[in-house]
Amino acid sequence: MLESVKNNKKLLPEQVSEQIANLITDRALHAGDKLPNEFEMAEQLGVGRGTIREAVKILVSRNVVEIKRGRGTFVCLHPGVVDDPFGFAFVKDKKKLAMDLYEIRMIIEPEIAALAAERATEEDVEELQKTADEVAVLCRQGKQHMEKDIEFHEKVAKYSKNSVMPKLIPVIQAGVSVFIHITDLSLALDTIRTHQMIVDAIRVHDSQKAREAMVEHLRNNKEKIEEMKELPQ
Amino acid sequence: MLESVKNNKKLLPEQVSEQIANLITDRALHAGDKLPNEFEMAEQLGVGRGTIREAVKILVSRNVVEIKRGRGTFVCLHPGVVDDPFGFAFVKDKKKLAMDLYEIRMIIEPEIAALAAERATEEDVEELQKTADEVAVLCRQGKQHMEKDIEFHEKVAKYSKNSVMPKLIPVIQAGVSVFIHITDLSLALDTIRTHQMIVDAIRVHDSQKAREAMVEHLRNNKEKIEEMKELPQ
Repeated sequence: MLESVKNNKKLLPEQVSEQIANLITDRALHAGDKLPNEFEMAEQLGVGRGTIREAVKILVSRNVVEIKRGRGTFVCLHPGVVDDPFGFAFVKDKKKLAMDLYEIRMIIEPEIAALAAERATEEDVEELQKTADEVAVLCRQGKQHMEKDIEFHEKVAKYSKNSVMPKLIPVIQAGVSVFIHITDLSLALDTIRTHQMIVDAIRVHDSQKAREAMVEHLRNNKEKIEEMKELPQ
Repeated sequence: MLESVKNNKKLLPEQVSEQIANLITDRALHAGDKLPNEFEMAEQLGVGRGTIREAVKILVSRNVVEIKRGRGTFVCLHPGVVDDPFGFAFVKDKKKLAMDLYEIRMIIEPEIAALAAERATEEDVEELQKTADEVAVLCRQGKQHMEKDIEFHEKVAKYSKNSVMPKLIPVIQAGVSVFIHITDLSLALDTIRTHQMIVDAIRVHDSQKAREAMVEHLRNNKEKIEEMKELPQ
């Protein structure tokens, strides 16, 4: 399964990191599964343990594996899904970025909500209601609800039953959210109201209503972005 | 600009890599710009050169910088944009993945084409025509046109003037394309025809036509995915 990798133009640790990644997919290792130890991998791949260590570091930096001291190397929860995959941190004009991300959300999320309305189970709807309620509590208390809010949208994406959406949506939403710290009470109440509209539409499997509710929900964000004169760097 | 970073819970090289990334954004360094040398960075950050080397390796593995031997460390073309940001390589069911990516393309790309129809300049249209012609030549010769095809869709995304789309589209398209090697002549001719419909609609700034042309174009792909019984792993 592990082939020797010495005849190749990439640097050796890079090659070995790919071999280890292949090992994870070939053996269908899951989140939390343990990798063979350094010694075994070195032997199987015909490279030194130093190279294995380098290769593992590359995989750590790509969120594929994590090292637990004294216990070994384990497969990450979402292997290969990185924190800022599109390098938003390197974009200079943050307001343009926020507007562009908003534009993308307006394209994707209403359709996601429509798909969720088609495909969500009763259990899904109850889960979504629970998260909407949690966001509502935070909003009413005037507390930071960003993370729970992202969770709400991630769940809508999950219930669309499209496996890529739950990876894509948080990236796009986090990119916007970094720049918007909503403390405004009227906006918070609007969030509660429109989140509930989304849950209700999904509950009765009404795609068109779910689509419209999401559009209305997102529009509030847009106004918030437009109001911003100065964006935090 | 560079703060000392010793009081923090993350591993030192990880912290230092973030500081170097901040340096790139703070100084607004661009693709191809050179970073200060190891010695300077070590001095400014108050860490050893070994730590700087580790930190740079982390940034290399995240496509932020590249090392040119004997010349130094340089900022990458698209800093922080990684090859497989959503870990598609780690998804076991490739057919489900291809269908899910197709579903996302069907949501995003018609709207992208509509935006391009609104916003593209005459020069943009000429560029797009050129790429469509190049794809057409490859198709007619029965040659592999995948890369040029991705370039065509990337350009449509670019002319939507949304700065995130050109990063997003190739990821989604590449995810699908890995599994579809189109050699079928009738399909190739359909690609030529529908690409041209897209260019023509954008040329006359007809958003609705551009949207419809993209939908028709993508539908061909869907049939191809559905036909696939066995997918290469």
